[in-house]
Amino acid sequence: MGNIFGHHFRVTTFGESHGPAVGAIVDGLPARLTINLADIQKDLDRRRPGQSLYASARQESDTVEILSGLTNQNMTNGSSLTMVIKNQGARSSDYVSLVDKFRPGHADYTYYKKYCLAPQPGGGRASGRETVGRVAAGAVARILLNYVTNGLLKVRAGALAIGPVMAYKTDFEFAETDPLRFLDPDGAQEAQGYVKKYMNWGDSVGATILVRAEGVPAGWGSPVFDKLEALLGGAYFSIGAVRAVEFGEGITLAKGLGSQANDPIGPKGPLEDRHGGVLGGISTGRPILARLFVRPTPSIKIPQKTVSLNGQEVEITIGGRHDPCLAPRLAPVAEAMTLLVLADCFLAPNSRVSQAVYP
Amino acid sequence: MGNIFGHHFRVTTFGESHGPAVGAIVDGLPARLTINLADIQKDLDRRRPGQSLYASARQESDTVEILSGLTNQNMTNGSSLTMVIKNQGARSSDYVSLVDKFRPGHADYTYYKKYCLAPQPGGGRASGRETVGRVAAGAVARILLNYVTNGLLKVRAGALAIGPVMAYKTDFEFAETDPLRFLDPDGAQEAQGYVKKYMNWGDSVGATILVRAEGVPAGWGSPVFDKLEALLGGAYFSIGAVRAVEFGEGITLAKGLGSQANDPIGPKGPLEDRHGGVLGGISTGRPILARLFVRPTPSIKIPQKTVSLNGQEVEITIGGRHDPCLAPRLAPVAEAMTLLVLADCFLAPNSRVSQAVYP
Amino acid sequence: MGNIFGHHFRVTTFGESHGPAVGAIVDGLPARLTINLADIQKDLDRRRPGQSLYASARQESDTVEILSGLTNQNMTNGSSLTMVIKNQGARSSDYVSLVDKFRPGHADYTYYKKYCLAPQPGGGRASGRETVGRVAAGAVARILLNYVTNGLLKVRAGALAIGPVMAYKTDFEFAETDPLRFLDPDGAQEAQGYVKKYMNWGDSVGATILVRAEGVPAGWGSPVFDKLEALLGGAYFSIGAVRAVEFGEGITLAKGLGSQANDPIGPKGPLEDRHGGVLGGISTGRPILARLFVRPTPSIKIPQKTVSLNGQEVEITIGGRHDPCLAPRLAPVAEAMTLLVLADCFLAPNSRVSQAVYP
Amino acid sequence: MGNIFGHHFRVTTFGESHGPAVGAIVDGLPARLTINLADIQKDLDRRRPGQSLYASARQESDTVEILSGLTNQNMTNGSSLTMVIKNQGARSSDYVSLVDKFRPGHADYTYYKKYCLAPQPGGGRASGRETVGRVAAGAVARILLNYVTNGLLKVRAGALAIGPVMAYKTDFEFAETDPLRFLDPDGAQEAQGYVKKYMNWGDSVGATILVRAEGVPAGWGSPVFDKLEALLGGAYFSIGAVRAVEFGEGITLAKGLGSQANDPIGPKGPLEDRHGGVLGGISTGRPILARLFVRPTPSIKIPQKTVSLNGQEVEITIGGRHDPCLAPRLAPVAEAMTLLVLADCFLAPNSRVSQAVYP
Repeated sequence: MGNIFGHHFRVTTFGESHGPAVGAIVDGLPARLTINLADIQKDLDRRRPGQSLYASARQESDTVEILSGLTNQNMTNGSSLTMVIKNQGARSSDYVSLVDKFRPGHADYTYYKKYCLAPQPGGGRASGRETVGRVAAGAVARILLNYVTNGLLKVRAGALAIGPVMAYKTDFEFAETDPLRFLDPDGAQEAQGYVKKYMNWGDSVGATILVRAEGVPAGWGSPVFDKLEALLGGAYFSIGAVRAVEFGEGITLAKGLGSQANDPIGPKGPLEDRHGGVLGGISTGRPILARLFVRPTPSIKIPQKTVSLNGQEVEITIGGRHDPCLAPRLAPVAEAMTLLVLADCFLAPNSRVSQAVYP
Repeated sequence: MGNIFGHHFRVTTFGESHGPAVGAIVDGLPARLTINLADIQKDLDRRRPGQSLYASARQESDTVEILSGLTNQNMTNGSSLTMVIKNQGARSSDYVSLVDKFRPGHADYTYYKKYCLAPQPGGGRASGRETVGRVAAGAVARILLNYVTNGLLKVRAGALAIGPVMAYKTDFEFAETDPLRFLDPDGAQEAQGYVKKYMNWGDSVGATILVRAEGVPAGWGSPVFDKLEALLGGAYFSIGAVRAVEFGEGITLAKGLGSQANDPIGPKGPLEDRHGGVLGGISTGRPILARLFVRPTPSIKIPQKTVSLNGQEVEITIGGRHDPCLAPRLAPVAEAMTLLVLADCFLAPNSRVSQAVYP
Repeated sequence: MGNIFGHHFRVTTFGESHGPAVGAIVDGLPARLTINLADIQKDLDRRRPGQSLYASARQESDTVEILSGLTNQNMTNGSSLTMVIKNQGARSSDYVSLVDKFRPGHADYTYYKKYCLAPQPGGGRASGRETVGRVAAGAVARILLNYVTNGLLKVRAGALAIGPVMAYKTDFEFAETDPLRFLDPDGAQEAQGYVKKYMNWGDSVGATILVRAEGVPAGWGSPVFDKLEALLGGAYFSIGAVRAVEFGEGITLAKGLGSQANDPIGPKGPLEDRHGGVLGGISTGRPILARLFVRPTPSIKIPQKTVSLNGQEVEITIGGRHDPCLAPRLAPVAEAMTLLVLADCFLAPNSRVSQAVYP
Repeated sequence: MGNIFGHHFRVTTFGESHGPAVGAIVDGLPARLTINLADIQKDLDRRRPGQSLYASARQESDTVEILSGLTNQNMTNGSSLTMVIKNQGARSSDYVSLVDKFRPGHADYTYYKKYCLAPQPGGGRASGRETVGRVAAGAVARILLNYVTNGLLKVRAGALAIGPVMAYKTDFEFAETDPLRFLDPDGAQEAQGYVKKYMNWGDSVGATILVRAEGVPAGWGSPVFDKLEALLGGAYFSIGAVRAVEFGEGITLAKGLGSQANDPIGPKGPLEDRHGGVLGGISTGRPILARLFVRPTPSIKIPQKTVSLNGQEVEITIGGRHDPCLAPRLAPVAEAMTLLVLADCFLAPNSRVSQAVYP
C-alpha cells in the first residue's frame, strides 16, 4: 500500500535501501515525448549521496536504466515507462548491531507494529533511498512540463534556513552551487559552519526548504478535495522528514488580519504573493511558493534511549554514513514531488467543454 | 473533479452555497453499523452558522436527511449512504453587486480562469458551505471509529490561537462551550475582545487550530506516498482557509538539532510527542497532533482593489453575513477531515497475512 | 463498496428499491455544458416501469431533481452534479412473506453471506431500481458526447433476440416504438407472443441485447488493462442480469480460422466489423458492437425450492409486479453504461504531447 | 494509461515485446507472506513460448528476478514487489518489412491513430509478451490466496474447444499435460489434428477457454459496479484475443425461461451452477465458472489486404514465429487475471463491522 502516486500521471516507486535496486514506473505519460536520459541523470545526480562533506558518504553512481516505455528513438510510446537504478553502496555491516533495536525518530517501531517485521537493514523501504524513484519520475515530469510549456514552467528548491541560520535572499542559481543548497550567498559560510559544528559532535541539523514553481498557468488544480495545496501538501508530507508545510505567507496570515491577507487583484491576476500562487485550490498564474520544515536527520552518533524487539530498555549509538542535514539532498525530492503534482494537473481532463475539442 | 475523498471510505460531497442542497455520499461503509441521526446532527450543529456573535448570521437549520444506505432499523446496509442537507438561508441579494467582480482572497478569479464562469452567488462550490457534506460524512466516520474502538478513538479540535492571542492550555471540554472554541479558559475573554475589535472595523482575524486524535492504534497509515501525515496534510489543505499545517513540534524541530528532535522509545512506544504520534508515516499509538494555520476570512467590509470580469480596475466592499474568524466553525471541519482519513486507514486492507484471516 | 464508476467521468449511484430515493452524482463533468433536464427525463422515461404489458406494473414518475452542479442557466459549473429521483411506487406488502427466505436467482443469499442482513424489501440495493441512477448519469454523458462530437456519436440498444425469437434486422428506430424494443419489425409480433405465453404461466423469458455505438472516433480506449472492451465488458457485467458479453463476431471467431477473422484494412480503417470496432483495446472509428446475453427475470410465480434464514428448506412463489422479460427496460441501461465508458474515454488525458496543448 | 490493475492488490505491468524486459510491480501485498520463487517460475513456465509444436518458437527462459519487496528470508515486507523478466528471444528482423504497414487484426492501426507512432517491432506493448507481467503477478496472488485459504482456493483453466472440436470432459489434470491444454483426453488427438492441419496452411485457429475457481468463500465481490462478474469480465476482456465472455450457463439462459434458469438454494447455498458461482455480483461459495471465447491468432502466413502508413493499399504476409492457436498459452493468463481479481476481493475492506475487529 502507498507506493502509487497521482491520478493521471501515475507513479509507482519501488525498492529498499539494501535491496538490489530502486526505481519507478510512470503510467499515463503521453506518447511522442523525447526523453533525454541525461536529463533524468542530472536530477538523480543532484540528490546523489557522497558529493560533499554535508551528505552521506555512501557511494552510489545512481545510473538510470530504462526497461520499457521508449521507442528506439527515445520517444515515449504511450506505455508504462520503467526506470531502474541499481543499489551499489549499501553496507549492511553498519546495521548488524541495530537489527533488534528500534532507532528513535525512525520508522523501525511503527513498521514493526504494522508488519510485525524486525528493523530492516538501512531502514528498508523507509530509507531516504526510496526517494531515488521519485526523483527519476519527477525528472520525467519536468521533461513533459518543460516541453508543453515551451520552457516556461520551472520548479526549483533551496534551503531558506539551516537550523537557525536564515537566508535573506532566494538565489536559486547560487543554491545549485552550494553544498547545502543555501539560497543566500551571504549566509552560506555561516550555514556551513553551523552544520560542521554539530556534525562534529555527532549531531544533526534541521532546515527549511523553499519550493518555487514559476510559469504554472492559471487554472490548474481543482475545487474541494483536490485543491492544488491539498495535492502539493500531501506530496510534501509524503517526504519522510517534512514535519510542517506552509503556502505563501500562511503562518503569518494566521496571526494577522483580513485586510492584510488578501492579495489585491489586477487585470493579470493577483498582484502579490501572500496566497502563494493559489486561490480556492486553483493556480492564479503567479509563482507557487511553499516552505517545507524539515526535521534534523534522526540518525545521530549521540547515545539515545530506546527498546529492543523483546521490550528491553537499551541505549544505542547510530554509526554508519548519514547526512548531517537533509536540506541539500531533500530539495531535489521536493522539486520532484512538485513536478509530479503539476504533471498530474496538466494531464487532468479538460475543465470546460468546447466544440473545438473534436471536429 | 476533486469531489471524491478517500480510497476505502470514499466520500463524495456536493452542493453550492446558493443551490437547493448540500450533502455527501459515503461509499465503502461496512454493513450493520447503527447510525443514530442525532450523532450526525450534533456535528452539523457544531459547524452551523448563526450561533454566536462571532459566526455568520446566515440562518440554517442544517437538518440531515437520509436518502439511502440504511435499513429500517437505521443500520447500514453495505450500500452507499446518502445525506442531504437543504439550503435555507441563502440571500442572493447580497451578491448582486459582486456578480461581475473578483473578490480578493476568494476563488472567483481562479474559477473564472479554469471554468470561464462569472463569480457564482455566495462563492458557489467554493463557499465554506461546501464543508457541510464533509462534517456529515465525518460524523459517520466518527460513529464507525467509535464503535470499532469501543469509544477509545477520539478526535477533537479547538483554537490554539486567535490572531496573536495564544492559548496556554488545551482544554477541549472548555472549547466546546466557548464561542470561539478557544482552548484556554484564561485567555478566552482576551480572544473574544480581539475579534470583537476588528469585526467592528469590518475586518477579520486569523487563527491556529489544534487537532488531537487520541486512541489511534499503532500501525495505521502506510509507507511512502500514503503516509498518515500525507493523507492528513492533504485533507487539511483541502479546507479552504488552511495555509500551513504542522505535525507535532515540526516547525521547532526544523530549527533545532537531532539530539533534541527524536522522541525516546519505551516498551509501549515513543515517550514524548515531538513526532506528533506518527513515525515513518505510521501511527505510534500516541496522540496524533496537528496545528492548522488558518487565514482570516477573506470577506471584509474594508474597501479592496480588484478588477471586474471585463478587466476594469474597481474597488469593492463586501457586505453580507460573514464569520469574523473562521476558527470556531472550521474546528469541526478539521475534525471531520481527520476522521475521514482515520476511517480510511481503519478500512485499509490487512497489512500482514495470517491464516486466521480465513478458516 | 462498488458504488463508484469511472476514472475521469466518475459516477456514484445510490438508493434502494424501497428507500426514499435513488440517483447519481457525477464528478468530473466539464463546465459550461448546457444540461436540458428534458434530455435526462427522456432517458429515464425509456427505462420507467408501468409502460407496457411487458414491464413491471410498478408506478413511478421517475422525475429527476437536480440538487447541485448547475448554474442558474442550467450550465454545468465544474462541480459535482447531483440528481435525485424519488421512489413513489414501492409496495412493501409484496415482500412481507419473503423477508426471511432467499429468492433463487436473486442476491438475497449472497448479501446475507456478505453483510449478515436479512433479505431487504424489493431486493434493496440489488434491485433493478438501482439502475435509475445509471440511466440519469448516462443521459448526462450522452449530452456531453453529443455536444463535443456535434451529434456524430450515437449509442443505441435494442433486443436482438427474445428467448429463441431472433431479429434479422437491426432497426433501432422501430425498436424505440416496440414494447419489447425488438429490433426487427417482422418478428415483433412473434416475440410478443412468446413473452405473453410464458408470462401468463408466471414464467419469464431471456433475451439478447445489441448495443451499437456509432461515431466513436478512432483512438479511444487504452492498451493492456483499460482496453475499451475491458471497460465496456466490466460495465455490461455490472448490470445484474447480463450473463455473457460478446464484441463483434466474437463467439463465431472462436470457432473459426484466422484467415476468416481479420478485418482487412483500408485507408480509413478496417473495412468490416468482425472486431466490433475495436483493435488492441482502442477504437477503430467503425461502430462498436456488443451483444449482451440477458437471463430471464429471476422473479417468477412458479414455485421454487429454497431455504429460509434459519436454514429450513421451503418452497416459495414470488408475487408482486415484475418484468416478464428484462430486454425493453435493460436496453436503456446498456446504453447508459456504454455512454459512461465513452465519456470516461473522452475525458482521458491526451494520449500524445503536442506543443499546441499550451501556448 | 491502462497499465495498473486492481483497487487493493494493485498491479502495474510494463514492457514491450522487443524491449529489454517485461515485468510487474505489486502494491498492496500484505507483509510476512513467504514467496517461493519457484512458484512464480512455475506459472511463467506454463505460458512460456517454445515448448511445443503448437506454440511460438521464440526462445525465452522467462526467469523472474526480484528487485524489491522481500526480506532476506523471501518474506514480503509490506512494500512494493518488483518482478523483472528479461527479453532474450526477440528477433526484430522478422518485423523489418512490416514497419510501415498495419497488420489486420492487430493493434498497429489503432495505436497509430492514438499515439501517432508507426507499428512497433513485435507489436510493442500490444504484444502477447505483455502478459508475462500478469502471470508473474497472478502467481503471487495465487501464493497469497493459497496461504490464506489453506490451499482450498484453486484457479484452473483449460481449452473447452479448439476451433469446432469440443471437450466433453473438464479434466484439468490432463490439460496440464496436453500441448493444447485441451480438457478432454478423448478429444485431444482430434484437437491437435485440427490445429496441425491449419497451421500447415499458414492459418490459425480459435478456441474456448474454461476458467474454474474453486474454494472461493461466499461473500466475495460487491454490489453494483464492482460485481464479481464485472471485475472478472473486465479482467478477461483485457486479454487481447478474448472476444466474448460467459459466466455459468449465460448464453443458454438468455434463450430460455426463468423456471429453468434459477439455481435452487439449499442450506449450503445454490445447488447447481447455472449462475456460475455468483449471485448479485457476490460469490456463493460454489465454483466460479467462466468461458472465454478466444479469436484465432491474427498473425497468419496467408496474404491479407491492408494499407501502409502513407495510406497505400498493400498486401502483406506475416512471417515470424507465432502461436497457431492461443489456447495453451492464454489459459495461464486467464488464470492470472482471475487470481488478481480474487486477491483484490480478498483484500477488500471488511464488509461488516464487528467489535472483534479491534480489541
